[in-house]
Amino acid sequence: MTSMPFEDKKKSRVTLLDVARRANVSRATASLVIRKSPLVGADTRARVEQAMRELGYVYNMGAARLRAERSHTVGVIVPNLTNPFFAELLSGIEAVIDSAGMVVILANSGDLVERQDMVMRRMREHGVDGVIICPAAGTEPAFLHQLADWDLPLVQVLRQISEEVDYAGSDYAAGMRQAVDYLASLGHRTIAFAVHGPIHSAYRERVEGFCDAMQSRGLDPNLIVGLPIQIGEIADAAHLLFGEGEQPTAVICFNDVIALGLSAGLYDRGLKVGENFSLIGFDDVTDAEAMRPRLTSVSTGPVAIGGNAARLLLDRLADPIRPSHRVVNETVLHIRQSCGPVAVSALQQSR
Amino acid sequence: MTSMPFEDKKKSRVTLLDVARRANVSRATASLVIRKSPLVGADTRARVEQAMRELGYVYNMGAARLRAERSHTVGVIVPNLTNPFFAELLSGIEAVIDSAGMVVILANSGDLVERQDMVMRRMREHGVDGVIICPAAGTEPAFLHQLADWDLPLVQVLRQISEEVDYAGSDYAAGMRQAVDYLASLGHRTIAFAVHGPIHSAYRERVEGFCDAMQSRGLDPNLIVGLPIQIGEIADAAHLLFGEGEQPTAVICFNDVIALGLSAGLYDRGLKVGENFSLIGFDDVTDAEAMRPRLTSVSTGPVAIGGNAARLLLDRLADPIRPSHRVVNETVLHIRQSCGPVAVSALQQSR
Repeated sequence: MTSMPFEDKKKSRVTLLDVARRANVSRATASLVIRKSPLVGADTRARVEQAMRELGYVYNMGAARLRAERSHTVGVIVPNLTNPFFAELLSGIEAVIDSAGMVVILANSGDLVERQDMVMRRMREHGVDGVIICPAAGTEPAFLHQLADWDLPLVQVLRQISEEVDYAGSDYAAGMRQAVDYLASLGHRTIAFAVHGPIHSAYRERVEGFCDAMQSRGLDPNLIVGLPIQIGEIADAAHLLFGEGEQPTAVICFNDVIALGLSAGLYDRGLKVGENFSLIGFDDVTDAEAMRPRLTSVSTGPVAIGGNAARLLLDRLADPIRPSHRVVNETVLHIRQSCGPVAVSALQQSR
Repeated sequence: MTSMPFEDKKKSRVTLLDVARRANVSRATASLVIRKSPLVGADTRARVEQAMRELGYVYNMGAARLRAERSHTVGVIVPNLTNPFFAELLSGIEAVIDSAGMVVILANSGDLVERQDMVMRRMREHGVDGVIICPAAGTEPAFLHQLADWDLPLVQVLRQISEEVDYAGSDYAAGMRQAVDYLASLGHRTIAFAVHGPIHSAYRERVEGFCDAMQSRGLDPNLIVGLPIQIGEIADAAHLLFGEGEQPTAVICFNDVIALGLSAGLYDRGLKVGENFSLIGFDDVTDAEAMRPRLTSVSTGPVAIGGNAARLLLDRLADPIRPSHRVVNETVLHIRQSCGPVAVSALQQSR
């Protein structure tokens, strides 16, 4: 898998990345020079301007901004459509893009880099004005930089690959801390973390957030349990929570899909969620509202994240060379009915 | 809302619909004439051929088939992405379209005709090779005919607006009969039907199927209850099942989203699904596998319908003027745990 998989139809054109490389600075720095930012020192500025002259680089901001061939279409690429989180994210994106008189077209990468390449190539061929992408696990930063250099306005959503590309997400680590703190306040000491799916930045942020929060309370963060992707298979894998070591009295779920599946699996084992076992979801999707007992979940605010990503893209379309921006939502713990104080017997056992 | 909302860039070109109108036959009949089908009588054939001559109509099948400007992209337009049914439908479409070396781009009409118009126009401008559409409620047949006449290969999925356009769906009426027959076999006589959403062909087919099945058993089909669209609001509306008349002992749900929501609402009322109240879903989405008790549901086979729609579109791309085809899946009742024999007390009350 190469990270620059497209035939570059504009190969003869000098890009900002070419300038940055020649001047031995980052693309972001080269962009700051063009914008005449005071953040760039005189030496760096001189070096970038020399590289621009040598390469014959011209950036016509007005032309880019007023580009006549706008298609009024925004491409959105997500890794997965079966998780209701993405439907909510999309509704947030659509609300903002609609208001701007533009249309969203969506593609599913299946979290596969090869498929993402193909989908992205087609979107570019179709002339979308810009793309909001939740990068497939394993996406290289160079993939995004190449797209940015093709003047394809781009926003990363949920997962971040490059600091040089706009990003909208949520503070997953803080969300994990909220979940751990809440369970600890209820007396839980052996807390499992149920995860699934491939490794990406949002995965790492959650796992690190969980481990840090557990360790800062002197609790063992090593009960991390991998579960199947398919919701129908999660229930039958609930036994994985209960291995040979200390038995957990609570589980924090990587997302609400896992919470929904585990809720069924715990029921099958005769455990009563909210009474003798505690369960916390993550994302707080609306489907969780139909769970009984009602699911306590850390809201990552999918609709809000979608709206933020869409606004970042509109800003990027209006000003293609502004420095990259990050918008990171705060998470909110919605306490409902799925957690309770640790049972005295379990407490004695786990001490 | 006009039903032909697009600026027709090919206005000067004579279309098959022009020929059909001139000859006073349907577009399907004109298509059969071009294909030299034996199903068309000599008189009709002569009339169509005369119209073709008079209008100067030429259909170059080879050119259409080998069209160089193929984008290898299929547009899919769905009314709603929050119902997991559509994610499963899409996975069925993608599996087939992927195998053909093509890419799916998706758009959400929000079940709004105006939005669907805009999305469809953009897809056409982007040069998709064909479109699979679940028409928004209120879509006029003329809308689909116009698209077909622009040589945009088209397949209707789930909802049917026109017999002249390919269609992939499921036998919803037969599915309703399976649900009613099963509940009747368990002794239920007062059975509610919980619906939501706007009126379209799939809605009508289900309601008619329910009413026919109830009436053919001498049961009252009038306990049809409208519920909110949002899953989080369905539970709180469960009381609507229990009005002033006879109290139902079972409910058939329009889809599994309703089943999921009502399951929570029945729990809130102290009813035990599968014990003293019976609940049947419709669609059998994988989310239903995480319900406890496990949901009995009529499978409409979303993945299979998606695959059928994609194959219809590929066949249509290969042969743009073949007569329209219909592929209608049989439904399967998946019996799990959410229904039980009617309680004796309820039986006495309802008789």
